Amino acid sequence: MKPSIPRGTRDFTPVMMYKRQLVFNIIIKHFKLFGFEPIETPSIENIATLTGKYGEEGDQLIYKILNSRLNEQQDKERIKTAFNATLEKPVNNELITEKALRYDLTVPFARFVAMNNHTLTYPFKRYQIQPVWRADKPQKGRYREFYQCDADIIGTTSLINEVELINLIDNVFSELKLPVKLLINSRKILYGIAEAMGSPNRLVDIVTSLDKLDKTDKETVLKDLECKQFSKEAINKLLPFLELSGDNANKIACIQNLMSSSEVGLKGVEEIIFIFNTLSILPKTKIDIIFDITLARGISYYTGLIFEAKVNSNQISNSILGGGRYDDLTGVFGLNNMSGVGISFGIDRIMEAMEQLDLFNETEYKSQTNVLFIHFNEQQQNRCLKLANLLRQNGIITEVYPEICKVKKQMEYANKKQIPFVAIIGDVEFEQNSITIKNMQTGLQTTYLENAIIGFFKS
Amino acid sequence: MKPSIPRGTRDFTPVMMYKRQLVFNIIIKHFKLFGFEPIETPSIENIATLTGKYGEEGDQLIYKILNSRLNEQQDKERIKTAFNATLEKPVNNELITEKALRYDLTVPFARFVAMNNHTLTYPFKRYQIQPVWRADKPQKGRYREFYQCDADIIGTTSLINEVELINLIDNVFSELKLPVKLLINSRKILYGIAEAMGSPNRLVDIVTSLDKLDKTDKETVLKDLECKQFSKEAINKLLPFLELSGDNANKIACIQNLMSSSEVGLKGVEEIIFIFNTLSILPKTKIDIIFDITLARGISYYTGLIFEAKVNSNQISNSILGGGRYDDLTGVFGLNNMSGVGISFGIDRIMEAMEQLDLFNETEYKSQTNVLFIHFNEQQQNRCLKLANLLRQNGIITEVYPEICKVKKQMEYANKKQIPFVAIIGDVEFEQNSITIKNMQTGLQTTYLENAIIGFFKS
Repeated sequence: MKPSIPRGTRDFTPVMMYKRQLVFNIIIKHFKLFGFEPIETPSIENIATLTGKYGEEGDQLIYKILNSRLNEQQDKERIKTAFNATLEKPVNNELITEKALRYDLTVPFARFVAMNNHTLTYPFKRYQIQPVWRADKPQKGRYREFYQCDADIIGTTSLINEVELINLIDNVFSELKLPVKLLINSRKILYGIAEAMGSPNRLVDIVTSLDKLDKTDKETVLKDLECKQFSKEAINKLLPFLELSGDNANKIACIQNLMSSSEVGLKGVEEIIFIFNTLSILPKTKIDIIFDITLARGISYYTGLIFEAKVNSNQISNSILGGGRYDDLTGVFGLNNMSGVGISFGIDRIMEAMEQLDLFNETEYKSQTNVLFIHFNEQQQNRCLKLANLLRQNGIITEVYPEICKVKKQMEYANKKQIPFVAIIGDVEFEQNSITIKNMQTGLQTTYLENAIIGFFKS
Repeated sequence: MKPSIPRGTRDFTPVMMYKRQLVFNIIIKHFKLFGFEPIETPSIENIATLTGKYGEEGDQLIYKILNSRLNEQQDKERIKTAFNATLEKPVNNELITEKALRYDLTVPFARFVAMNNHTLTYPFKRYQIQPVWRADKPQKGRYREFYQCDADIIGTTSLINEVELINLIDNVFSELKLPVKLLINSRKILYGIAEAMGSPNRLVDIVTSLDKLDKTDKETVLKDLECKQFSKEAINKLLPFLELSGDNANKIACIQNLMSSSEVGLKGVEEIIFIFNTLSILPKTKIDIIFDITLARGISYYTGLIFEAKVNSNQISNSILGGGRYDDLTGVFGLNNMSGVGISFGIDRIMEAMEQLDLFNETEYKSQTNVLFIHFNEQQQNRCLKLANLLRQNGIITEVYPEICKVKKQMEYANKKQIPFVAIIGDVEFEQNSITIKNMQTGLQTTYLENAIIGFFKS
């Protein structure tokens, strides 16, 4: 059998892991500095927890788990009928499947807050770093299993949270040395546009069309809206919004005019102004912040400010972070009046961008081992084991070559793993209670007494 | 809708996470000191990768994922037929499900090695910390989703690897301060017993019966074997093995006699002797190591030494680690002659034991925030944001209360989270560019100039 892994999933080798850990550690460091605390939720949620939160397209991408012991169940006829029905419409019959894999970290977080409400101190700030699964078509940079790194604050409507998140984003990407532009918009402004178009009840249709501007051009989006039965008149009302230009202040002033009749839209503009004003008092961010009316963020639970960060380089413009405010995501779980706002770093896209922009210092990702012990018989090997334990107690990463074999093979291992020092115990060393240490870079060999070895590696 | 999570899964709150991270960090530290390097594999594997490795019972506990877009598939009649067939026997039809959730970390590791063979340096030492899923009946201390922490060495048959793993186990549990006994046995000895019973080809039947000695008594196990059609004579041959007593050396001598006619069995005894001899040369382990002929380890891929660690206390005797040598697990993936040996720490059982033995210092697991800024208007809040960013740049975990509200509410937040310092910017402080810092433990308040604040928190 030739082994394989499912399409859209990956193995991570040690070198890949070291790079990923570097990025994770920087993100976690900044999450912590802002007072976010870690939580984890199960990979498996009840299907009802997940469905209806990600829009219709999203729902279809949720991985469902086949009920175990299906064949032990009594009522086989009912199961058959249920299954046949699922072939006609999306599968969601309890007899066949009742659990699904997590699709993002935000909905499970809202479920967590509703369930743990009485034990939490509000505003509650949590970070969460776990994989999510989506039955998406795999393509370059898009996987079926990938990690999200989320930070959310829940239980406060203050826009200061949005400002703090922007600072957090700025700090993370600055430390990663990634050139980034942060697009911001507001679902309230998008609602204002829908009002201006005379279709406030069709916000989702408008948002899903606008969301495509990213990958396609204006004309296609307008056609898309036509297909959705929007009138020529309504579409004409949209046009000026798509033609905004100039700096953030210009665009904001312009849009304030365009939606002067939408109370919600104006509230959205006001919020954007507050955020830019507050940011202007703080030290200038290193990332560019751009007010972008076409930013829509597909997922349906957002209600206020929305974010998206993209790599700001000629070579690539991947989306590497998303987020926004959701005013009542916990409501469906029975907990009302719990506004939250959060961001989600896409670690895989970040890694990919850093690789393309050559931001990893390749020499750092070799084996972490400090010293390999080599030997030529059992007695010598036992001496090595003893000294290795001593070094480990002193925090020095130590390996003992496990087999008794020719020096060449043992040295090859050290070379391949780029281990900086080899400690040799041969006949002479064994006799004299000494160790010969070879610096693998210079080739220099020096013999030390056993009791000097810790001192050598500590310095 | 009242939210819930699937049976056998758990949410982890920040306090639980801090405790878990403490245990994970200690395990990772020791993995690294021995030269193990991190890898990760996908949560989702092809079903064929997993089935047939865990015994029949294990196979039935694998969670299968329903093919996505089932309803888009063309050949509905074939799918229906396939599904109806799965109701009669365990589900494994490609039309319905082709992917499954990881059941352990060892089989995915063997698959990883076979697939990445040409990029690896052997002996290859990896550690891996990821969740696994089993459709087991949930009960106290047994979950359907739980983390495994594995270390394996592959590509060497040397028993020195077993010795090093025992030292690693000793170091981890010593640092965790958990009293532990490590049981060891050998699949070869179990094979020797099967030979002595005249049924070398029924090793699996014997092993699965012996494996129950843990939870039940000798009589039940003997009855179990009778049910499996073992003859009275065969069972009588087993009896002396179950009556071994005395210290390790006694038991080993005794068993060497009992299986003098089994070549494989004697090889197993020899290996056990080698391990005890090598250990005797090294500093004495802090954990007890016990040769236990009844240790079987259910999973079917082991071929040599097997391990199991249990808590050594009157209150509890949970199994908290398992492992062993597998001579040809990669063979099924097309890579032969690749012997490996590994151990798996059960983090959940370890946590549970540490809680019961009161080994966590409860005061350490409160919020990590060093200081909360409080204020009474927007201007003051902006000043707080500025100073908070400054403190964070200096590594001090800082929060700014996000809402403008009464001092009591803000102080309550600090109290509930047990934040040690509150930094107040009120009218006077705003005017004078100063900050009043309240030590929440002593109640002492002191006013500092803004530029002294970093110095204050650094000391």
